[in-house]
Amino acid sequence: MTSELEQLFEFLRFPSISTDSSHASDVKACAEWLVAKSESLGLTAELHETPGFPVVIARNEHVPGRRNVLIYGHYDVQPVDPLNLWDSAPFEPEIRDGRIWARGATDNKGQMLAHLLGAGKTIAEKGDLPVNLTFLFEGEEEIGSPNLAPFLREHADDLACDVIAVSDTGMVAPGVPTLGYGLRGITCCEIFVRGPARDLHSGLFGGAVTNPATAAARIIASLHDESGKVAIEGFYDDVRELEDWEREMWAKVPGVSADDFLRVTGSPNLFGEDGYSAAERTWARPTAEVNGMGGGYQGEGSKTVIPAEAMAKFSFRLVPDQDPVDIMKKVEAHLQSHCPPGVSVEVMPGHDGKPYHADPHGIYGKAAQDALRRSFDAEPVLIREGGSIPIVQDFREILGADTLLLGLALSDAQIHSPNENFPVENFEAGIRLNQALLEELGK
Amino acid sequence: MTSELEQLFEFLRFPSISTDSSHASDVKACAEWLVAKSESLGLTAELHETPGFPVVIARNEHVPGRRNVLIYGHYDVQPVDPLNLWDSAPFEPEIRDGRIWARGATDNKGQMLAHLLGAGKTIAEKGDLPVNLTFLFEGEEEIGSPNLAPFLREHADDLACDVIAVSDTGMVAPGVPTLGYGLRGITCCEIFVRGPARDLHSGLFGGAVTNPATAAARIIASLHDESGKVAIEGFYDDVRELEDWEREMWAKVPGVSADDFLRVTGSPNLFGEDGYSAAERTWARPTAEVNGMGGGYQGEGSKTVIPAEAMAKFSFRLVPDQDPVDIMKKVEAHLQSHCPPGVSVEVMPGHDGKPYHADPHGIYGKAAQDALRRSFDAEPVLIREGGSIPIVQDFREILGADTLLLGLALSDAQIHSPNENFPVENFEAGIRLNQALLEELGK
Repeated sequence: MTSELEQLFEFLRFPSISTDSSHASDVKACAEWLVAKSESLGLTAELHETPGFPVVIARNEHVPGRRNVLIYGHYDVQPVDPLNLWDSAPFEPEIRDGRIWARGATDNKGQMLAHLLGAGKTIAEKGDLPVNLTFLFEGEEEIGSPNLAPFLREHADDLACDVIAVSDTGMVAPGVPTLGYGLRGITCCEIFVRGPARDLHSGLFGGAVTNPATAAARIIASLHDESGKVAIEGFYDDVRELEDWEREMWAKVPGVSADDFLRVTGSPNLFGEDGYSAAERTWARPTAEVNGMGGGYQGEGSKTVIPAEAMAKFSFRLVPDQDPVDIMKKVEAHLQSHCPPGVSVEVMPGHDGKPYHADPHGIYGKAAQDALRRSFDAEPVLIREGGSIPIVQDFREILGADTLLLGLALSDAQIHSPNENFPVENFEAGIRLNQALLEELGK
Repeated sequence: MTSELEQLFEFLRFPSISTDSSHASDVKACAEWLVAKSESLGLTAELHETPGFPVVIARNEHVPGRRNVLIYGHYDVQPVDPLNLWDSAPFEPEIRDGRIWARGATDNKGQMLAHLLGAGKTIAEKGDLPVNLTFLFEGEEEIGSPNLAPFLREHADDLACDVIAVSDTGMVAPGVPTLGYGLRGITCCEIFVRGPARDLHSGLFGGAVTNPATAAARIIASLHDESGKVAIEGFYDDVRELEDWEREMWAKVPGVSADDFLRVTGSPNLFGEDGYSAAERTWARPTAEVNGMGGGYQGEGSKTVIPAEAMAKFSFRLVPDQDPVDIMKKVEAHLQSHCPPGVSVEVMPGHDGKPYHADPHGIYGKAAQDALRRSFDAEPVLIREGGSIPIVQDFREILGADTLLLGLALSDAQIHSPNENFPVENFEAGIRLNQALLEELGK
């Protein structure tokens, strides 16, 4: 076993489960290990206490005139239940079939340590790095990073940088280097549709009053037209159209064909906005989704009531240049104007986050592509992602820098599930990627 | 206190709660009391064991050439919880403010005993009744009459009759004698709308697949048009139009104005099929109601999933001459043809029952009206009811006779709730009603 793998195994043996207070000392010990590891690689490192788990900052000596690069990772992991479904103990890493099996192997210890060891390797080979590098490691990503944004604000000057790199996302397929340059934003709300003062007997009163469940369904149905487009007035006003190069590239990206989507979702058919592929619909088009709805009697058998109230939870995924606040205004206006007679609708806005987009053809994007090409010996694909990663927005808003999403996770990495794993070759590619990336960014 | 009230108090003191097995001996004792009471009034009476609680049959001597009349009632009562909300003990009847307060006072002991004592009074006054009368008292109405239809089938010859009278429904207002001559039928189903094989992340997959909750909402929304009419093809084909006299009468019936419906339901507005009043909509027009719906995350906060499945429960209230089997076929065809692309819908039919309608202007209806007019000294109103009473259908199907619904219950009788009550004057009117009814039916 290589020395790099041995160091990863040491890292993986910490049961640094941030959500489980009985593992608090393990999380802290893991942070201390990272400080020592960083120092042993030739970096200076500091452990910063927060109201929760520590942030570890490690850096080389910063020299004026060089690019300032920040690399983010997290050393905390998900819980391991159900333990009986693991083929080997989650905190006793093993190599089988070319993969490292352990909790955190992919998410995120394997990916983040590859960067740290890559930097150490360059220092060992060349005496220093070609950039001013800052590592930012947190121990609360799996519980929603409650203390990261305040930390960033407090240390904004110290963490100032030109560009940020994060390896905590996916590769579209094994061996296909993947640069993510966009994320969808989100805005959420919950509605309560209210009619009669209490549940009514559907025999005695059915026909005379609006049924709030029917009304909620009519409101939900009003969100889309027959073709799958969102029917809220002005919803698409600020949507940036896909560029031709994106549509051309995405049509060739492996792992995201219609067949792939059918297989992964298990849906009988795909359906969405007319004129767009599944990848385009999920990466670059906005949506209106019902995440939950309910009203009346949902138990076994029947209960012939007209419910007094029905509810629904919505989330809207947003793309550049939609603004969550503007969209929520339009959503509220739509919901109110589509409320059937005889009931009222209350709209309670929830959390939101802006869409993210960075030009992958700018100098940093080009550097990332070159680094990916060199470390995987294959042409990188450029993708956006359909989900939202709040810290990327925090980085842009607080540190003013864009983030390169250099994902090394495979779709069968089983993150957050039993039998999490990480290919040895991805770990090794990650070390090469860090070296190449810093070299390209240093140019 | 009159002797009649004393006898009602005796009857009310039995805690004959059929759903509570700890009261099984009380229910049986109550049945035995009824046998003895009937015999003391000059009737012959038999207690018939069933797999559940006994049926009590009481009759005068049947003489060929007279009309055969059956009067139904039930001697079991609802539970009394929450006991602390009662102003007096539920099985220690009291008179306050001209009302009898006790569990069962209205539902159904007060109403049924009025008939029994009325018959006894006529026998005492005249030596016999003007008709061949059979009383049928059951002890399982509050648990759904599981043994009544089998009992009727087994004793169909013995129970053969020309007409049936039941006092177990409502009066539209105090002092307004009310003849019910119609009930809505019902047919029910539950649907499951299924799409992806499991709940999906709405960021990663939102836009590419049909959301089953959205699809269920679109299906529910398809059941009505904008004007409140049911939009299922052929739904109204067999609906018998209201007759002019019904519309004229119902417009004048107290207690069922738009204001009354608003007050009773607590709805902000009424809404229903265009061109019909609230009473017409609930008594004589069919409906499609969602009794429950659900899908995805309904708990606190947000969970951004696309649910794998959504469900809804429907009930359709039917009017003459709609057939529940025919309607369910049309419902299923509608649900399948309105299922959006990308999901499937499974329809599981539930229970059903035919609508009921008997001509209130036939000889029995006329007799009932005359009896109501005489006993209340007021002009009776003729109404239908929006709910369904399964035993009335059983009577028609097994015994081949129509039922006169001679309700004595007020809307504030608190049946099934704490502080159930029955006006002394309604009890006394019930006794007169029985005497007048049998006299009119005997003509």
